[in-house]
Amino acid sequence: MPLEIVRDPRELRLRVEDARRDGRRIALVPTMGYLHDGHVALLAEGRRRADLLVLSIFVNPTQFGPNEDLARYPRDLDGDLAHARAAGVDLVFVPEVAAMYPDGYQTYISVRGLEQGLCGASRPGHFAGVASVVAKLFHLAQPHVAVFGEKDYQQLAVLRRMVRDLDFHIELVGVPIVRELDGLARSSRNAYLSTSERVDALSLVRALGRAEALVRGGECDTGRLAAAAREVLAGAASARVDYVELRDAETLETVARIERPTVLALAVFVGKTRLIDNRVLTTTSI
Amino acid sequence: MPLEIVRDPRELRLRVEDARRDGRRIALVPTMGYLHDGHVALLAEGRRRADLLVLSIFVNPTQFGPNEDLARYPRDLDGDLAHARAAGVDLVFVPEVAAMYPDGYQTYISVRGLEQGLCGASRPGHFAGVASVVAKLFHLAQPHVAVFGEKDYQQLAVLRRMVRDLDFHIELVGVPIVRELDGLARSSRNAYLSTSERVDALSLVRALGRAEALVRGGECDTGRLAAAAREVLAGAASARVDYVELRDAETLETVARIERPTVLALAVFVGKTRLIDNRVLTTTSI
Repeated sequence: MPLEIVRDPRELRLRVEDARRDGRRIALVPTMGYLHDGHVALLAEGRRRADLLVLSIFVNPTQFGPNEDLARYPRDLDGDLAHARAAGVDLVFVPEVAAMYPDGYQTYISVRGLEQGLCGASRPGHFAGVASVVAKLFHLAQPHVAVFGEKDYQQLAVLRRMVRDLDFHIELVGVPIVRELDGLARSSRNAYLSTSERVDALSLVRALGRAEALVRGGECDTGRLAAAAREVLAGAASARVDYVELRDAETLETVARIERPTVLALAVFVGKTRLIDNRVLTTTSI
Repeated sequence: MPLEIVRDPRELRLRVEDARRDGRRIALVPTMGYLHDGHVALLAEGRRRADLLVLSIFVNPTQFGPNEDLARYPRDLDGDLAHARAAGVDLVFVPEVAAMYPDGYQTYISVRGLEQGLCGASRPGHFAGVASVVAKLFHLAQPHVAVFGEKDYQQLAVLRRMVRDLDFHIELVGVPIVRELDGLARSSRNAYLSTSERVDALSLVRALGRAEALVRGGECDTGRLAAAAREVLAGAASARVDYVELRDAETLETVARIERPTVLALAVFVGKTRLIDNRVLTTTSI
């Protein structure tokens, strides 16, 4: 089957309604394009789980703050289509901004607890933009299953809660972080990094590794674990911490000790590029 | 077909998925129960437009403010079921609060412009509660068409915008206000009125009539029209105005003159009971 490219939301709707009528199972992988191996892993997971694999590519303006990188966010549609073909995507949805946000658009979904703190603190409005556009994509693509990366840990928590709270009949699947050979989490924003920043960017995964090693050695105090992670990050000249936090892996509530699965989440500016990474820490007794 | 009563959201989902698979058209009429002739008109409209007519009865706590009438909101399930049978309803969905709002519920939909002012001003959070529960009911009942009364004018505007903005594939139908013989708009809350309050409650429809007569006579100034409506309401001893406003009938923006269809919307406390009513005013030249 050749790759089908759809730009009109109404056309997408017709296509997926046909598929539903034929009893085909639909998977959606929502992305902002500039695909890398992390996205390829999402597509592979979607392919495995569905008859019709839909990839959406939409750099969603409502999830960017006024001082963020919307205008310079990297784009490469030809490269994305090559990745999509190789991954066995059936349909690529590439809407225009005006088609997604018609005049007078004003509806936003808030997941009031989970969107607080972490990336929500430094990116006000970000998760309302994410949740709303994902709800729109769910309504347009009508997937049985939707696949997201675990690198955007808080995003996945917000979306899982939205799906449960609003009774979307969609299975959300999280896919583990895909890393470069040296450990850097794959991200479209890695393209912004200079050579020396690329080296400093490794401080994130090293900070996660240090904390994990301490936990393995018996350390359960989240304050001491955060301090150890910060110490590693401080060793990278171009790195400036946005946050280093340990939160309950499910509720994202702050925790003083690791007694249940706990996510160590990092956001770090390396030069002007904001990178995130995370790891779920568990004591051996859990 | 006997009337089917479903309490479990998952069971509703199975029922409507069967219906969808069989190519049946589904209409949903969401209500808070205590059905009256206004609701019967909604059900008749739904019956006309669908193969499977679903009535939901749910007194939704999230749309009531802390000082509102949630606890004493009138209920009469037996009466409602009799109305439903007479109206040819196929399925009544009567969920428990705990099934709709499980532990940790935290997702709310905001229609940021249209929810401002009018009832949104005196009932903070009301429309977020309405929009969110309606989105849930849409996801559970998967209707092709949903029917709402025009008495809740702002609610219908908010929901129309939500449906458009979030790409719900559902046709919303508004049904004109159903009135008692003497003109009082039908409302479950009319049950709260004492005999003398019942008389004073007629001031709402008289205020609308006075404004309409003035417009017919050539008056276009919304300030003068509001003043005339207020004058009528001031004549009712137990009535206390919450708001009297003229707004663009579609955008709900305030307008100085009637140049396009304009809704005159009233909210009035009659004794302790808050009543609303409205009428769309148009000059003959529109």
